[in-house]
Amino acid sequence: MSIQYGPDYVRAIAPYQSGKPIAEVAREFGLDEASIVKLASNENPLGIPESAKQAMLAAASDIARYPDANGFDLKAALSAKYDVPQDWITLGNGSNDILELAAHAFVQPGQAVVYAQYSFAVYPLATQAVGGRAIEVAAINYGHDLVAMAAAITADTKLVFIANPNNPTGTFVPAAEIEAFLKKVPQQVVVVLDEAYNEFLAPELQYESTAWVRQYPNLLVSRTFSKAYGLAGLRVGFGIAQPAITDLLNRIRQPFNVNSLAQAAAIAVLNDTEFLNKSAQLNADGYLQLTAAFDALDLEYVPSCGNFVLVRVGHDDGAGARVNLALLKQGVIVRPVASYGLPQWLRISIGLPQENAAFIAALQKALS
Amino acid sequence: MSIQYGPDYVRAIAPYQSGKPIAEVAREFGLDEASIVKLASNENPLGIPESAKQAMLAAASDIARYPDANGFDLKAALSAKYDVPQDWITLGNGSNDILELAAHAFVQPGQAVVYAQYSFAVYPLATQAVGGRAIEVAAINYGHDLVAMAAAITADTKLVFIANPNNPTGTFVPAAEIEAFLKKVPQQVVVVLDEAYNEFLAPELQYESTAWVRQYPNLLVSRTFSKAYGLAGLRVGFGIAQPAITDLLNRIRQPFNVNSLAQAAAIAVLNDTEFLNKSAQLNADGYLQLTAAFDALDLEYVPSCGNFVLVRVGHDDGAGARVNLALLKQGVIVRPVASYGLPQWLRISIGLPQENAAFIAALQKALS
Repeated sequence: MSIQYGPDYVRAIAPYQSGKPIAEVAREFGLDEASIVKLASNENPLGIPESAKQAMLAAASDIARYPDANGFDLKAALSAKYDVPQDWITLGNGSNDILELAAHAFVQPGQAVVYAQYSFAVYPLATQAVGGRAIEVAAINYGHDLVAMAAAITADTKLVFIANPNNPTGTFVPAAEIEAFLKKVPQQVVVVLDEAYNEFLAPELQYESTAWVRQYPNLLVSRTFSKAYGLAGLRVGFGIAQPAITDLLNRIRQPFNVNSLAQAAAIAVLNDTEFLNKSAQLNADGYLQLTAAFDALDLEYVPSCGNFVLVRVGHDDGAGARVNLALLKQGVIVRPVASYGLPQWLRISIGLPQENAAFIAALQKALS
Repeated sequence: MSIQYGPDYVRAIAPYQSGKPIAEVAREFGLDEASIVKLASNENPLGIPESAKQAMLAAASDIARYPDANGFDLKAALSAKYDVPQDWITLGNGSNDILELAAHAFVQPGQAVVYAQYSFAVYPLATQAVGGRAIEVAAINYGHDLVAMAAAITADTKLVFIANPNNPTGTFVPAAEIEAFLKKVPQQVVVVLDEAYNEFLAPELQYESTAWVRQYPNLLVSRTFSKAYGLAGLRVGFGIAQPAITDLLNRIRQPFNVNSLAQAAAIAVLNDTEFLNKSAQLNADGYLQLTAAFDALDLEYVPSCGNFVLVRVGHDDGAGARVNLALLKQGVIVRPVASYGLPQWLRISIGLPQENAAFIAALQKALS
C-alpha cells in the first residue's frame, strides 16, 4: 500500500469547482472562444474599469519589487472610505483569503463552525481544511435562517459564516435581522459577515456594517473587489474587524498575499462611483431581462439581490446537468449547483444585454 | 478581561518582517523616493522583463474575469520545461504559498517540523501557524547540516524544509549531499526543497531536482518567479511533486490563488533565457563588486550562491541595528537579520553596479 500523506480531513476535501474558463470550454466543445458567453462566475460584464487600468499600468514598471506587505496606501484609502482605523483592516488575496484566514486563525481541529445550507462553497472547504466540525443549518426559502443559526451555536463553536447577499441563491437578510443575530451570539464566537455582493444592493436595502464592527468585537466584515469593482482576475479583498481579530489574521496572513497591481488598481477603483453606478444599473436592468424570460418560460427562480439568479430548470435531479450541457454545446457557460444540493437548478450571472439575450435563446433551445 | 480569539499558537506568532518599502523609508526619514537604493528583498534589479510586460498588458483587458483556477496554460508550459506531468504541479501565490500549503496539508497541531538554524523565516512561521512543533537543527558554517537534520527527524515529524541556496545566508548544499539526505529520510516525511534562488547557481553547481521528484514520492520542490525572473510584485511560484502530494496541496489551495496577470507573465518569462542570463551575469558581477569591498573593509561575509550576501558589520550585538540605521539615514535599505539570530550581520541584496556602489559608499561612512 502506498503511503498516505496529511490528516484524514485534508484528504477528504473535494476541491472547489470554479466556473469553467472560456478557453477550457472552447477546447472541450471545439468552439471559437470569441463566440462563447460566460455567465458562470458572477464577474462584472463591463470588464476592467478604466481607472484601474491606468493605475495598473503605472504600477507595472515596478513589478520586480515585492508588494508592500502592509498595504499602506490601500489601507489608507479604505480607512478613509469606511472611517475605521488602519489596524482594523486585513487585506486578502480576494475575500476568499479573508474567509480562509478566519478559519485558520480561529478554528482548531474538532471545533465547530456554523453556516447555512445553500451558502458559499468556501465555508465548508475552509472548515474542512482546518479539520473543523461543520454545523450546517437548514435554509429557509433558500436563504439564512438566523434564528436557527443562533440556536445551533454550541459551546465549542468558534466561527459563523453569513453571506449577505447569499451566493449561490441571491437571498438577502435585512439589516435588523443581522443585528438581532449579532446581539445573540456569544462574544467568543467570531462572526464573518461576507458581503461580496454588497455593492449590488438597492439603496433601500443598504446598511452600515462597519458601524456594527465598532459595536461587536467578534464581527469580521469581508468585502471584495472581484464583483462590482471588476477586478476578479487581480485578486484583492479585505476584512474589517476590531484589532483583537485583525491582529490575528495579520499574524497568519502570507506577507505578500496581495500583489502590487491589485493594490494599485483597488485604490484607483475604490472611489470610482461612476463605474460602480454603471455596474449597478446594468445589473438591475439585466435582472429584469433574465427574470422576465424565466417568467415567460414558467421557470421558478429565487429573487436575487446579487449579480446572478438561481433558476430551476427542471423537476428531476438530472435537470441541472442536462440543461447545463445543452447550454455548453451552444457556447453558453453558466454554473451548475448540484454540489450545493441544488441539482434541479442553475446559477446564471447577469451579463451584458446581448449576453443575457444569447443565454435566453440558448436556454429556450435547451428546454425544448 | 477582554476575550482572546484563536489558539495560543496563533496568538504567539510574530509576523514576518519584510524589507522596508521605499515609500516607507522616504516617509520615515524625509527622503526623496528617487534617491533611495533598496537592496533589502533579494529582488531583481533589472526590473520587469520586457517579455513579461507585453504578456501582462495583453492579459489586462480580461481582468474582470477570474483567473483560470487550474492554471492550464502555465502548467502546460512548466510541464514542457521540466518534463513532468501537469498533475505534478501546484501553482502558488509566490513560492511562499507552496511552503504554507505544505505546512497546512501535512502538519497537525503538535506534530514536528524540521528545519535549519539561520534558514528562511517562513519555515518557523508556517510551522507555528498550524500549531506544529519546531525542531530547529544547528547550522554548520551558517548552512544546513543535513546529517544532523536527518538524525533530528522524530517519529512524529511530518515535514522538513531545506532551502538551497539558503536565505538569508547564501550557503549551498551540493547535489550529492541532498540526495544522500533524501535516501535517509523515511518515506512518510515530506521534504520541501525550496529552490527560490536556483537560477543564480553557477553552471557547475546546477543539478536536476525534478529527477529526484520522480524517484522520491515524499519530495516537493518549490520554485519562484520572484527572484531571477523579476516578478516579485505579481506573486507566482510553483511546486513539483508526485500526485500523492500535489493532490493534497491542490485540495487546500485557494482556488484563485494565482492572479491572471501573474499566470500570463510567468508563461512569457519562463523561457526568456536572454533575461535570465543577463540577470545571472549582473548578479555574478555584483557579487564580486560587493565582496571586494567587504574584503577591503576587512568585513567577514558568508560566501553566497544567491543574489545577496550576508556580511558581519561589527562584533557587538548592536552592530546590525546600528549600521542599518546609519544606512537608512543615507537612503540605503538593506536587511537586518537579528530576528534570525544574527544581530551582528546584515543581508545585502545584489543590485545594479551603481546601486552596489552607493551602498558601499554609505557603508564606509556608516562604519567610520
